[in-house]
Amino acid sequence: MTKQINFNHSAGVPVDEQVLKAMKPYFRQYYGNPSSVHAVGQQSAKAIANARVQVGQLIGAAPKDRVIFTSGATEANNLALQGFAYRHRRKGNHIIISKMEHLSIINTAKFLSKQGFEYTQVGVDKHGIVDTKALKKAITDQTILISIQHANNEVGTIQPIADIAQIANNAEIPLHVDAVASAGLIPVNVSEHGISLLTLSSNDLYGPKGVGALYTRKEVALQPILTGGGQEYGIRSGSENVSGIVGMGAAAELAKEQLADNVTRLTWLRDQLIKGVLEKIDDSYLNGHPTQRLPNNANIRFSYIEGEAITLHLSFQGFLVATSSACTSKTLAPSHCLMSMGVAEAEAHGALQLTLGRENTQAHIDKFVEVLPPIIEKLRAMSPLSKDVPYDIFEDEEHDHHH
Amino acid sequence: MTKQINFNHSAGVPVDEQVLKAMKPYFRQYYGNPSSVHAVGQQSAKAIANARVQVGQLIGAAPKDRVIFTSGATEANNLALQGFAYRHRRKGNHIIISKMEHLSIINTAKFLSKQGFEYTQVGVDKHGIVDTKALKKAITDQTILISIQHANNEVGTIQPIADIAQIANNAEIPLHVDAVASAGLIPVNVSEHGISLLTLSSNDLYGPKGVGALYTRKEVALQPILTGGGQEYGIRSGSENVSGIVGMGAAAELAKEQLADNVTRLTWLRDQLIKGVLEKIDDSYLNGHPTQRLPNNANIRFSYIEGEAITLHLSFQGFLVATSSACTSKTLAPSHCLMSMGVAEAEAHGALQLTLGRENTQAHIDKFVEVLPPIIEKLRAMSPLSKDVPYDIFEDEEHDHHH
Repeated sequence: MTKQINFNHSAGVPVDEQVLKAMKPYFRQYYGNPSSVHAVGQQSAKAIANARVQVGQLIGAAPKDRVIFTSGATEANNLALQGFAYRHRRKGNHIIISKMEHLSIINTAKFLSKQGFEYTQVGVDKHGIVDTKALKKAITDQTILISIQHANNEVGTIQPIADIAQIANNAEIPLHVDAVASAGLIPVNVSEHGISLLTLSSNDLYGPKGVGALYTRKEVALQPILTGGGQEYGIRSGSENVSGIVGMGAAAELAKEQLADNVTRLTWLRDQLIKGVLEKIDDSYLNGHPTQRLPNNANIRFSYIEGEAITLHLSFQGFLVATSSACTSKTLAPSHCLMSMGVAEAEAHGALQLTLGRENTQAHIDKFVEVLPPIIEKLRAMSPLSKDVPYDIFEDEEHDHHH
Repeated sequence: MTKQINFNHSAGVPVDEQVLKAMKPYFRQYYGNPSSVHAVGQQSAKAIANARVQVGQLIGAAPKDRVIFTSGATEANNLALQGFAYRHRRKGNHIIISKMEHLSIINTAKFLSKQGFEYTQVGVDKHGIVDTKALKKAITDQTILISIQHANNEVGTIQPIADIAQIANNAEIPLHVDAVASAGLIPVNVSEHGISLLTLSSNDLYGPKGVGALYTRKEVALQPILTGGGQEYGIRSGSENVSGIVGMGAAAELAKEQLADNVTRLTWLRDQLIKGVLEKIDDSYLNGHPTQRLPNNANIRFSYIEGEAITLHLSFQGFLVATSSACTSKTLAPSHCLMSMGVAEAEAHGALQLTLGRENTQAHIDKFVEVLPPIIEKLRAMSPLSKDVPYDIFEDEEHDHHH
């Protein structure tokens, strides 16, 4: 396979070279189990303690707060919702999430609703911004937790997390923030906003897959999901993925160092990309917020055609891209995010989710802006939905064939 | 730190060199998310499918059975018990485990007992063999699942899994087997015995940490613990740990190839070790079954002294060993396994758990058998419990100091 240009970083990124270098000794040389009291075990324990600090520093955690390592963001989101709900059931049975959340939040809220809990999904405006008035109204005396993402990986919209935290804090309800899409791309600070729980994913920070973390403010109690040897403060049992945790720590440190540069460089590339595509292609529209958006995200819909067909043609040109339903790409259902923002179903099917990353260059953007217009043109020419094309184009074609 | 000789393989082992080689391309080159429909994503999906076959073949799975990758054995054990119990609650609320199980089984059974389930812990004989008569008797019309380990990593005892499976099958109750300690060391065959669920750990097969698998016979339904994107047959959500899964697959294939050699070589070394220690040191006893034991395990107790002190002195001699409470080594409680076998508490504190591995040699055994006797002798000379020493030895010593 020839070298592909990755415009699909939100689905997965290569582990950073420095991160992989930091991990390497922990596969064979420092193989100890942190629970072992002997020297090789204690080496692993120290490495994990160091990774906790590295991750904590990325998000402005206080020294006594906790960073609980998990198998990924899905487990961290499950632990935040399930763990908090079960532990604080006596205080109430209601949680609030938004319509833009990741499936690991939405489906966990649904799961909890079968266990005696209730949840409200707060809506968003046409740019995907959570309706803070509706959020305030949704709070009842049964509400024990609010879970809102920091930014949306699919459409790029950044939530007004300070306002949301203010609402939660005023109501004295702990706030969980899914920061998978934002960490490493924009500043995330739990202490500044008074966030109680926060989810991170290692791979989204260019760390290894299969690792994530749930930050918990020190006074927040959770019921474990996984019980056993009592690792991770007794909240997450299971022998630690030492090399993975070391990798996540290194990735967090690197992400913190590179944050300012990333923002500047990616914002520039992203804006070139959006501007280039919208200018060159008629009936193309940016999804998500025009300014409150992740520096690496461009989500663009193209009327009259299917996103799946565009991704296929782009792959022939060497571009890895996704339609705007990456998290559910096995189904062909339209993105729940776009639908929540009021995008028509037909239009939602035509959306491309473009997420840039560290290795992307101006040359990639230039090439993309060059190859995309003819693809769109070609697909629209074949599309039964296209405004310039009669609906029976396929019948005509078939007719031609038979002659 | 000088090179240590590892006699503590049950706590953690270095990743096999071939396994690490198999994993390497999946960190940076093949970084795709298996859910992505594009080429890079599909490469990861294929790699995972291949790993499923490799793991399935190690345990004699049928083609339509499932291998569900998890973050490790603890998650797999939790998924087996929680996932089965919740899913089949209508059939009954009783599960049976043994007193020798890993804490991820015992504590999960305890957890379920707070959610309306009940459990029975079947006892064992002095060698740690499950009392099959008691097992049969424990079955009620409410029993929905039996979970018994294949072998015990701490004392080495191998359970009569064919008899246990027969009892479960006769009663038409699915059997879950925790095969973490046995897989790769002795044959494990789910099809031969009619096992419904089986837990594996990657690191115990010389694969990476942070990966495990739950085998499920095709007709066994489970309720997910982690909800989200619906990965792993919809039973275990979360973006896949691709490099880890590839590593576990490679480790399983290697373990299958090397099984016969491992058994022969390790059994020889183990027997030299046991014989050498028991012959040279008075009042030392083998814990666990004399013959039905894991080829790599020697668990030996030494009267009058503490295991912790022995491990410390052995570490000065370059040996990594653990006391017989490795899974709970952060507490100093005596091993629940030894206590279940009727070993007195004072004696249980003097037990060493020695687990050999692929890199151990005859020279390691020879050195160990040479260095251990003087350590034991020295510790016994200082021990207030020792039969030849007056209880006030420490007072005398202090007295001497002051002069």
